[in-house]
Amino acid sequence: MIMNVFVIGIGLIGGSLAKDIKSAFDNVTVYGVESNEANLAEALTLGIIDKKAIYQDLQLADMVIVSIPVDVMVTELPAILDAVNEDCVVFDVGSTKSQICKVLENHPKRRNFLACHPIAGTEFSGPSAAINNLFKDKTNIICEVELTAFKLQERALKVFQAVGMRIRYMNPVAHDKHIAYVSHLSHISAFMLGKTVIEKEKNERDIFDMAGSGFESTVRLAKSSPAMWTPIFKQNKENVVETLEEYIQNLTAFKEMLLNDDYEGIYNEMNNTNKIKGILNRNTVKQEIE
Amino acid sequence: MIMNVFVIGIGLIGGSLAKDIKSAFDNVTVYGVESNEANLAEALTLGIIDKKAIYQDLQLADMVIVSIPVDVMVTELPAILDAVNEDCVVFDVGSTKSQICKVLENHPKRRNFLACHPIAGTEFSGPSAAINNLFKDKTNIICEVELTAFKLQERALKVFQAVGMRIRYMNPVAHDKHIAYVSHLSHISAFMLGKTVIEKEKNERDIFDMAGSGFESTVRLAKSSPAMWTPIFKQNKENVVETLEEYIQNLTAFKEMLLNDDYEGIYNEMNNTNKIKGILNRNTVKQEIE
Repeated sequence: MIMNVFVIGIGLIGGSLAKDIKSAFDNVTVYGVESNEANLAEALTLGIIDKKAIYQDLQLADMVIVSIPVDVMVTELPAILDAVNEDCVVFDVGSTKSQICKVLENHPKRRNFLACHPIAGTEFSGPSAAINNLFKDKTNIICEVELTAFKLQERALKVFQAVGMRIRYMNPVAHDKHIAYVSHLSHISAFMLGKTVIEKEKNERDIFDMAGSGFESTVRLAKSSPAMWTPIFKQNKENVVETLEEYIQNLTAFKEMLLNDDYEGIYNEMNNTNKIKGILNRNTVKQEIE
Repeated sequence: MIMNVFVIGIGLIGGSLAKDIKSAFDNVTVYGVESNEANLAEALTLGIIDKKAIYQDLQLADMVIVSIPVDVMVTELPAILDAVNEDCVVFDVGSTKSQICKVLENHPKRRNFLACHPIAGTEFSGPSAAINNLFKDKTNIICEVELTAFKLQERALKVFQAVGMRIRYMNPVAHDKHIAYVSHLSHISAFMLGKTVIEKEKNERDIFDMAGSGFESTVRLAKSSPAMWTPIFKQNKENVVETLEEYIQNLTAFKEMLLNDDYEGIYNEMNNTNKIKGILNRNTVKQEIE
């Protein structure tokens, strides 16, 4: 039996999923739907999708992957669910979950939808950013799993397993709160670090000649797509503001310790934070065991 | 002719330099000097050094690499210069340059000293962190080169070239100002990001299960050694406080835009900062050309 997989939005995440699915299954046809014609043509040329498609073709779909900015997600997901057949599973990959779940809570095809957030990515975007094995050993958070038809959960999980994802179940409110800390705040921290240094460079030439791998690592996320990230910060405003306030408070306290020559305090702050080593390693070990 | 290279402090930087020098030259004997006996024994076992040594042996040295925390540097460099012979070059690898240059300005052997900062490293420390090729295509900033005897500059440059470093000349005050932006601020940004998320985890279990590669990259420097970084922040206090104030100001402005629902402003901030891509790439391209 052939499985028709539709990918709506063929960028980094949608494109990488399409590539992995094509590698893992030999009975899959991947259809691409894109508002950007150039991206659609590129995805076809790169072999990420097999065919171009439009919403009217969605009745053919066995699986629909929706990988578009989260503000567009909120307006498009109801129309996508309207267009699919009763036996199709639709899942999103958005970095926020509350508003997406909320907007679909009373949709007649709610049981065809699975709310997902695969925590994977790079700082690049567009079809050319799509790579194989992006999701191997990465966490995919699924929200409100009980609202999805069991048979359709199974179909999606088969694909998630094939691309190497670990699954975690969580409610959408907890998801948005936690992800603000471990993802959204990192992006703002990197963007503002980049801004601070770029502003300085205006007057001080060649400052980037001095940038080492440490700076590159810390600022890497400042290369991310503003079109994707602006709606994420908008949808998760309340949580993001809270994390930002805590971060600014910690930075200000560090600055005060410096101003007061409290080097023992500074040493202790860094020493306590060093335990991030163990925490991140523990995570890696966990992933290897599973 | 045998060259006797002394490495004082055999951690990540001193140990990696020793490894590369041993690979590049077959007529070198590397002597290790360390206040930590266990580290010294480990460096010998790992083959990073050929022999253990003490200050009294420094008269045998043709080259001395001083890779110790910058506060210890300030007290030890005068004694090290006192101990070496007239034909020996001593260079440091400290992340601050003003105080180190200042403390040696009237030393009778000032012409035997070369003030250096190889911008290279990882988040690990100790002899076991030493790796080959750490300095390939990395910038080494040399300060007050005109104060070092020409013949001794040449000897050091031969070694820097052999390990693959690019050289930049700069005065110590400009060095400390610029490096605060591209290195010291990144470390504080990462440490405080780590702290903010760890504090949250106290009450919210399993938050790190959700951490992806973006978070790991942004927080990586929070694994760095507090013993090495506390004295750096102390010596460069004025510049570091200035960068921190600008960073906090940018983060606060971003938060205000969020609170005011100014998403066009947020988009523009990120879009403007995206040019960090071009800047970091330009740097890479430069390195490839040279």
